[in-house]
Amino acid sequence: MDIFIILFDDFRTLDVFGPVDVFGEIKEFTLHYCSINGGIIYNSHQVPIMTQSLPLKLPYNSVLFIPGGMGTRLLVDDRVFICWLDKMIAQALYCLTVCTGSALLAKTKRLNGKYVTSNKNAWSWVTSLNNQVNWQEKARWCVDGHLYTSSGVSAGIDMALCFVADLYGKERAIKVANLMEYVWNDHSHNDPFSSSL
Amino acid sequence: MDIFIILFDDFRTLDVFGPVDVFGEIKEFTLHYCSINGGIIYNSHQVPIMTQSLPLKLPYNSVLFIPGGMGTRLLVDDRVFICWLDKMIAQALYCLTVCTGSALLAKTKRLNGKYVTSNKNAWSWVTSLNNQVNWQEKARWCVDGHLYTSSGVSAGIDMALCFVADLYGKERAIKVANLMEYVWNDHSHNDPFSSSL
Repeated sequence: MDIFIILFDDFRTLDVFGPVDVFGEIKEFTLHYCSINGGIIYNSHQVPIMTQSLPLKLPYNSVLFIPGGMGTRLLVDDRVFICWLDKMIAQALYCLTVCTGSALLAKTKRLNGKYVTSNKNAWSWVTSLNNQVNWQEKARWCVDGHLYTSSGVSAGIDMALCFVADLYGKERAIKVANLMEYVWNDHSHNDPFSSSL
Repeated sequence: MDIFIILFDDFRTLDVFGPVDVFGEIKEFTLHYCSINGGIIYNSHQVPIMTQSLPLKLPYNSVLFIPGGMGTRLLVDDRVFICWLDKMIAQALYCLTVCTGSALLAKTKRLNGKYVTSNKNAWSWVTSLNNQVNWQEKARWCVDGHLYTSSGVSAGIDMALCFVADLYGKERAIKVANLMEYVWNDHSHNDPFSSSL
């Protein structure tokens, strides 16, 4: 199963590399780091990642992964990107997003009527973008059909472990969490940060 | 303050990018991604990161950061690398390591007599490398003078937050943890994974 990780300027570091540390331990997954034009992408943490240019068509059974970060503040108004994203979501078997990545998805309308969450520190901005989404304030992550959305930054690790559990069983996810010496918050509605709303 | 992040083939993803997500939020820090020869470094999670070649001399007040990962299994026997590392540690104001990065440091002898921890899944291998180190089995992380060592993978985030707290106060570290929506395990001896020994 191919996982396409969509990178853009000022993506949030842990939004990407928390889930990557989970996915990278699953031998059935192949990870691809992509951006609109390819080349090196930097973020505000000065992380330089080499990317391939985005494919026009996803292979069968692909997963689309979209992080958040300050870069989403500009990208929500980038029609070319949102249009491309809309087409990619339609092709993907699963679509996963962390943090303010849900702002980008909300702009495609593909979240309309769906149970969705996002970063609690950017909640009012994200939810203002589309009032047709069933925004869930108290959720570490949400699953609705083939869509997985998570709260901010580190919540992506919990969601990624849930994705592995859904595909390959909870024992496998626990094994990965233990390798990471990570205490998995495995209850999607146990959200310690929703009280900051 | 400059933080030099030392990368090598098969470094562990979250060992690096967990702490980077913390350090990247501290405006006083500048992050540098380095490797022996520079260029793109890959790991087993297929992460392609662009690096500068390692400096021969660290700027005044620098921090050296060394991740772990499967790549350390080869590097412990790389005399050129260990010799270079030894010289860098001597110049650094602080030296931080995550996971099996402590195996590399142990080979330099700079951990001799120091309170140190490491990954609990690789404990017997790491501790076998140097019996002059005060290896601490039940520790999420350890601080001994200018040396910070942590347990496996996600423990690096807890240690990085402690480093920020030590330099700039606990309130600042809590603020970063909240931005990351991360439940900081702020007790260095609260180690949920030591029981697997």
